[in-house]
Amino acid sequence: MLPITFLSDYGHRDEYVGVCHGVIERIAPGAAVIDVVHGLPPHDVRSAALALRNALPYLPRGVHLAVVDPKVGTPRRPLALRCHDGHQFVGPDNGLLWPAVERCGGIDVAIDITNSPYRLEPVSATFHGRDLFAPVAARLALETPIESTGSPISPEMVARLDLPRARVGKRQVVGLVLTVDRFGNLQLDADGEQVREAGFRPGEAIEVRVGGKRVRATLARTFADVPVGDAVLFEDSSRAIALALNGGSAAESLSAGPDAEVELTPWDG
Amino acid sequence: MLPITFLSDYGHRDEYVGVCHGVIERIAPGAAVIDVVHGLPPHDVRSAALALRNALPYLPRGVHLAVVDPKVGTPRRPLALRCHDGHQFVGPDNGLLWPAVERCGGIDVAIDITNSPYRLEPVSATFHGRDLFAPVAARLALETPIESTGSPISPEMVARLDLPRARVGKRQVVGLVLTVDRFGNLQLDADGEQVREAGFRPGEAIEVRVGGKRVRATLARTFADVPVGDAVLFEDSSRAIALALNGGSAAESLSAGPDAEVELTPWDG
Amino acid sequence: MLPITFLSDYGHRDEYVGVCHGVIERIAPGAAVIDVVHGLPPHDVRSAALALRNALPYLPRGVHLAVVDPKVGTPRRPLALRCHDGHQFVGPDNGLLWPAVERCGGIDVAIDITNSPYRLEPVSATFHGRDLFAPVAARLALETPIESTGSPISPEMVARLDLPRARVGKRQVVGLVLTVDRFGNLQLDADGEQVREAGFRPGEAIEVRVGGKRVRATLARTFADVPVGDAVLFEDSSRAIALALNGGSAAESLSAGPDAEVELTPWDG
Repeated sequence: MLPITFLSDYGHRDEYVGVCHGVIERIAPGAAVIDVVHGLPPHDVRSAALALRNALPYLPRGVHLAVVDPKVGTPRRPLALRCHDGHQFVGPDNGLLWPAVERCGGIDVAIDITNSPYRLEPVSATFHGRDLFAPVAARLALETPIESTGSPISPEMVARLDLPRARVGKRQVVGLVLTVDRFGNLQLDADGEQVREAGFRPGEAIEVRVGGKRVRATLARTFADVPVGDAVLFEDSSRAIALALNGGSAAESLSAGPDAEVELTPWDG
Repeated sequence: MLPITFLSDYGHRDEYVGVCHGVIERIAPGAAVIDVVHGLPPHDVRSAALALRNALPYLPRGVHLAVVDPKVGTPRRPLALRCHDGHQFVGPDNGLLWPAVERCGGIDVAIDITNSPYRLEPVSATFHGRDLFAPVAARLALETPIESTGSPISPEMVARLDLPRARVGKRQVVGLVLTVDRFGNLQLDADGEQVREAGFRPGEAIEVRVGGKRVRATLARTFADVPVGDAVLFEDSSRAIALALNGGSAAESLSAGPDAEVELTPWDG
Repeated sequence: MLPITFLSDYGHRDEYVGVCHGVIERIAPGAAVIDVVHGLPPHDVRSAALALRNALPYLPRGVHLAVVDPKVGTPRRPLALRCHDGHQFVGPDNGLLWPAVERCGGIDVAIDITNSPYRLEPVSATFHGRDLFAPVAARLALETPIESTGSPISPEMVARLDLPRARVGKRQVVGLVLTVDRFGNLQLDADGEQVREAGFRPGEAIEVRVGGKRVRATLARTFADVPVGDAVLFEDSSRAIALALNGGSAAESLSAGPDAEVELTPWDG
């Protein structure tokens, strides 16, 4: 039996996550299910796609169930995918799976599971996690061949997701906030290489403009490298550049969230 | 060994849920425990009872541990129940278990576990999940006969829960908000049959009055059937009628929550 | 294989907890992992230390992974510990483990895992849960000898945590709020013995001054012992004295949180 990982925006105040676990346990008793995250911002496909991509190298080879699905019940396709490296994915065809799939060598087999023989009837219009995605994931965990879960489509037809990427100038990086984490750290659409390419050096003081505000941040390794209350730019655990406040929340302090524009330049004082 | 499902209002910022898992693991090592939900509104027995009832058809046959217990420590009874269809329940006798039990063919055996031989001594006055309910659920998972967990009582004595139900008129439904989910969807105490009985037709524009506000909603299958920002009335995944805002939160937009009065009439413009 | 328990402040809106689960599953497939709690206040070492200590008597003997780590990436040590009673702990050397370790008979073996052969390379500067702590915990679950996880240090060098403790006078207790739980209950740094020592009797009305406010509370067994809306002082499930509002949140009502000063005296009316 293969392990299942499960990511969604179902949150923790309703029974949605538990119901999907129940569906899996009934079809594949004893299957290992790893909850990747369920508290993602509701209906935020990009945040979810990044979380799945970033988690993937640390997850066991198996079946990755991912459901953030603002178009549930419309003709958007429900999918089961197998990648060239063997990882399998189940979720809606809205770009959510794309960044992870790219890391798995691309798509080998793509199946439209709209009319899957494994769906739970009647399929509701708003809870495909329960009626379609979880049952198919459970069957894949039982090593049911993916081809039997629905109708094949061309891998070319699977929805892609274009992620923003900062522009690099001379002593300047211009981008935006991709995501905010629990600690209020702002992850930018720039990576460490881009910051080095712009000519910034470790330990340097950098002016960060975000939203209408500006703050002095030190380019360092970790938030605790600067005094409490100071801002720091660092390469985070997924290799993106992030802005943090030691002992505080950069998001709150700067009133900044996803898609806020960000500019990095040398600090002039 | 039987699987255990676990539902509570213990939330995720304290160690309460983890402690109950620890108790179960110590008594029944390796038992499968499915967390149904723990982020329910604190002390809200009705929301919890609905979540348990709605989840139940998708949960494995086994032991259902459910703890939302505003009267913990008072003489309200702690219970273990076995239903006619074999499902077993453990929790406080405050109506929480009732809607689920009704779906399981009613109560076959009811046991008062106040003085259960399996309780952890000393039993605290405020954490019966740890000291009473989890240990008894773990014993039931080990297939200990329910009769040995305490003293039998008449199934007639188990507390019931009366759920509100909307009134249907000619081109009119009058009811209230039962629950609000993470996405801000308002679940009403009406079902699809009542809305049809009132004479509303799919695709029809309906005036929804809730709290002091009114909104135009389309009767449709899913929230994505209407333009972003528009309201929709749909039969949700538990067959209740719900009000949603495509791309937003109906609860926030209408400042409405549980028990708010709701009236549906045809939209006049 | 030993069971693992896992406590952190990683929260539930990011993939951090799931990634650590993935790391464990890859190293020790099938290991039982019990999530103690992950929604602790961010970077609050004291709350986390108390949660771990309070949970410990109910957790299985095994490996306790605990990560609340405001100094991650600085020279603070990452540790693996074995206590005299056999429990093993993995986490940062910032006092987090101390109260639990004291309950386990003290430290038998202490290992600095900075350069553990089991770490995931490259070790990030900000996510030691993923790169250092989870891999070492997984190895310990596989019954790898703790000595092989790094370099031994003297148990004397492990950071301690001094917990505040209320002062008792004649008919007076002066202390502070240690933690606040989901229900808004305020746990004080006093225990039942101290309240008895001060001469307060069960059922007595007590004046509680907290922050700038005062409230009349009854010394009782459980919050439901007083009318809805009234305040109660009770010995909570970890034997500390807590202040609750029946049917409400004491924390909200009194605008009080951790470290707020508290004084208990007889109620004069």
